[in-house]
Amino acid sequence: MSDRQPVDLLIRGGTIVTVDDADRIIPDGAVAIKGMEIVGVGASQQIQVLYEGKDEIDATGKVIIPGLVNTHTHLAMTIFRGIADDMRLEPWLDKIWKLEGEFASEENCRLGTQLAFIEMIRGGTTLATDMYWHIDDTNNVAREMNFRLVNGPIFIDFVGPDGVAPEDREAVARKILANIQDDQLVHPCVLAHSTYSVPEELLKKAGEIAEEFGALFITHASESMAEVQTVTEDSGKTPIEFLDALGLLTPHTLLAHCVHLNDAEIALLAKRDTKVAHCPESNLKLGNGVARVTDLRAAGVTVGIGTDGAASNNDLDMWGEMRSASLLQKGMQHDPTALPAPQAFRMATIEGARALGLEALIGSIEVGKRADLALVDFEKTHLNPVYDLYSHLVYAVDRSDVDTVLINGKVVMRERELLTIDETAVLTEAKAVGAKIKAENQG
Amino acid sequence: MSDRQPVDLLIRGGTIVTVDDADRIIPDGAVAIKGMEIVGVGASQQIQVLYEGKDEIDATGKVIIPGLVNTHTHLAMTIFRGIADDMRLEPWLDKIWKLEGEFASEENCRLGTQLAFIEMIRGGTTLATDMYWHIDDTNNVAREMNFRLVNGPIFIDFVGPDGVAPEDREAVARKILANIQDDQLVHPCVLAHSTYSVPEELLKKAGEIAEEFGALFITHASESMAEVQTVTEDSGKTPIEFLDALGLLTPHTLLAHCVHLNDAEIALLAKRDTKVAHCPESNLKLGNGVARVTDLRAAGVTVGIGTDGAASNNDLDMWGEMRSASLLQKGMQHDPTALPAPQAFRMATIEGARALGLEALIGSIEVGKRADLALVDFEKTHLNPVYDLYSHLVYAVDRSDVDTVLINGKVVMRERELLTIDETAVLTEAKAVGAKIKAENQG
Repeated sequence: MSDRQPVDLLIRGGTIVTVDDADRIIPDGAVAIKGMEIVGVGASQQIQVLYEGKDEIDATGKVIIPGLVNTHTHLAMTIFRGIADDMRLEPWLDKIWKLEGEFASEENCRLGTQLAFIEMIRGGTTLATDMYWHIDDTNNVAREMNFRLVNGPIFIDFVGPDGVAPEDREAVARKILANIQDDQLVHPCVLAHSTYSVPEELLKKAGEIAEEFGALFITHASESMAEVQTVTEDSGKTPIEFLDALGLLTPHTLLAHCVHLNDAEIALLAKRDTKVAHCPESNLKLGNGVARVTDLRAAGVTVGIGTDGAASNNDLDMWGEMRSASLLQKGMQHDPTALPAPQAFRMATIEGARALGLEALIGSIEVGKRADLALVDFEKTHLNPVYDLYSHLVYAVDRSDVDTVLINGKVVMRERELLTIDETAVLTEAKAVGAKIKAENQG
Repeated sequence: MSDRQPVDLLIRGGTIVTVDDADRIIPDGAVAIKGMEIVGVGASQQIQVLYEGKDEIDATGKVIIPGLVNTHTHLAMTIFRGIADDMRLEPWLDKIWKLEGEFASEENCRLGTQLAFIEMIRGGTTLATDMYWHIDDTNNVAREMNFRLVNGPIFIDFVGPDGVAPEDREAVARKILANIQDDQLVHPCVLAHSTYSVPEELLKKAGEIAEEFGALFITHASESMAEVQTVTEDSGKTPIEFLDALGLLTPHTLLAHCVHLNDAEIALLAKRDTKVAHCPESNLKLGNGVARVTDLRAAGVTVGIGTDGAASNNDLDMWGEMRSASLLQKGMQHDPTALPAPQAFRMATIEGARALGLEALIGSIEVGKRADLALVDFEKTHLNPVYDLYSHLVYAVDRSDVDTVLINGKVVMRERELLTIDETAVLTEAKAVGAKIKAENQG
């Protein structure tokens, strides 16, 4: 026994859905974790001979999956969930911008971000890609709660709730990015809101800074018909063409939404190896429609899945999003074989990681990768019998079936109990802040 | 104190979403229940002065809603969940029919029905409208578990797993219907599978028997393009026109799916006051598309919501279905104001009841109606802050937030514990039967 290598955590007895290239599923499998890293994956019998865990988790009856990867959201807007629904874009924006002006303080954004991370951890999501204000604060909440985040400075053509004017964005961006160097949890990106809300020069600048810092460049693109029309009228180019003309379509660019694309644009994204964050439920809820996911994937474009913000979805549930992604392609194409369950599951895991340029680090359960994992409890009446694991994972699992979650090797939820935050305190604060916002909003 | 009227159960301190005609929401409300019936609804202070409960439930922090009404499903198919996904209709039917021939025994159908009722109770659904085999057994499971059911004999043009030939269907139907007279939980209907699977004479006979017994007439109609094409080629009429020619479009007819309707058909359904069961996720998953729900409602057609069976959805989650119903109308019409949250919620409650002809009995929280209720726990981080109750109910609540459920005045789940069935025993049996089916299915 003494020749077993000591590891920090040994998870054993569960069915491992590795999502590796061979798409291995290991019944009665074990994962050995040392520090942040996965050091062993295989049959429980083999792994237990090799490793001895300081801590052990019995995963019998559970399915071990890579943590879900949320490629697009606006975390802190969770405090505004449900405040402006069933509205057209213009009055919605008016309302949200007014609210942000009054309530998107550093303190409230910290709270909104905590709410968002709690919701995501409880649902087995281990990474979020943010786009919002008070970036340093958000990054600090991620570090405190041990949540993996892709985040960075934002470029937009007005003074935001952060009080920064457009001409000061570059300097602020450099400071923010300097604070995310060699971070084990926060991965840098540069956020430009969109081609219609950021002037050409500022867009170019954002792109240059992304390249300089080796950071992902992220922007909203072709989300609504109105956006495509506006940009085309103003510039003679669609948003996609406009970004390409500025040299901003690269393999290190992630475009959120991409609902309205023509064949040429899909071919162009494929040629440039530019990535897409698909937000199926937000696209429906805001009346934008359904993105051509099957066509994008057929052309070779990497497509991840995102929830978008809680003010426009209204949950941060990647399971529902993954299911909707699959069902919508079948329904729109009148083809029940479109986007089958295993493909939808890959989009929510390894493909999401690839969309963020993080596929070497996360997105699958493999030796050498970071331990971002979720254990899903299959000892439930609504998940039995089991004929096909992927079918259940995509079409039948609820996020509340997630039992235990690890991020970067650390257990952040164990048997439904959150370990890196006082959830009750956050709930109390959310009620108090909500009451204040509600009172003002009605006034 | 002694002049308070004794009642069996007093639920107090919760926010009541009555879904009555005035759409009353009562903060800190109470519901008094005597036997099967609601005898008091109002502010807790008022109700507590009038009634004394033998049993009491403190609903502080919870939202009290009418139980959700599932207007279309195939209960026992829950044992086949996930066995045949991402397939075209023809191979799917071949596979399912083969499986049913081998495994749709009385015993297995009882098990599948138990699984379905457990799943629905856990999610706050208190009524299901079934269409399957072994009807007497299913009805008995409903009585044993105290679940409300709309069910009745089926008409179809082949010998089913129940061993009944088409020519014997009428006699069997009369027996089944005789067993559902004056039942407090099982409400009678007559099921004809569809215009393409039931010959004209048998369809007419099914309609006559429904009328004779005062039962709802239910059939699948205009679910797929192929169905509309086949029926039109064979008869010169669309399924809707065909049913009308037989006099089967009445106010006591419920049509499941209705995905492919033209304007004239919508006007006809409105004129006949024929009801529709909308199954948004099944319609996507089987590649059929999106029903014209907003147009149907605008024309005055009553539309309820259904999950369809677990073999083609794959969950029996009315929350997800309600959300999908709303989001899909917004997305398809490029209009974020389409089918707003309060309307979607009414479709899943009172409109569903109306679709089944049961609106005088259930579907809202009002004095004189049966106590079919669910308590939803809002003391959750993902449900705070609250700005708009309906928004949270439709766009943010998970079915696992349902805490306590009553059907016909009886508590069937209390604080997530099922009271009318041994859930562990059902889970064990489901695994055993599933293993057997899986082994045969692979062979």
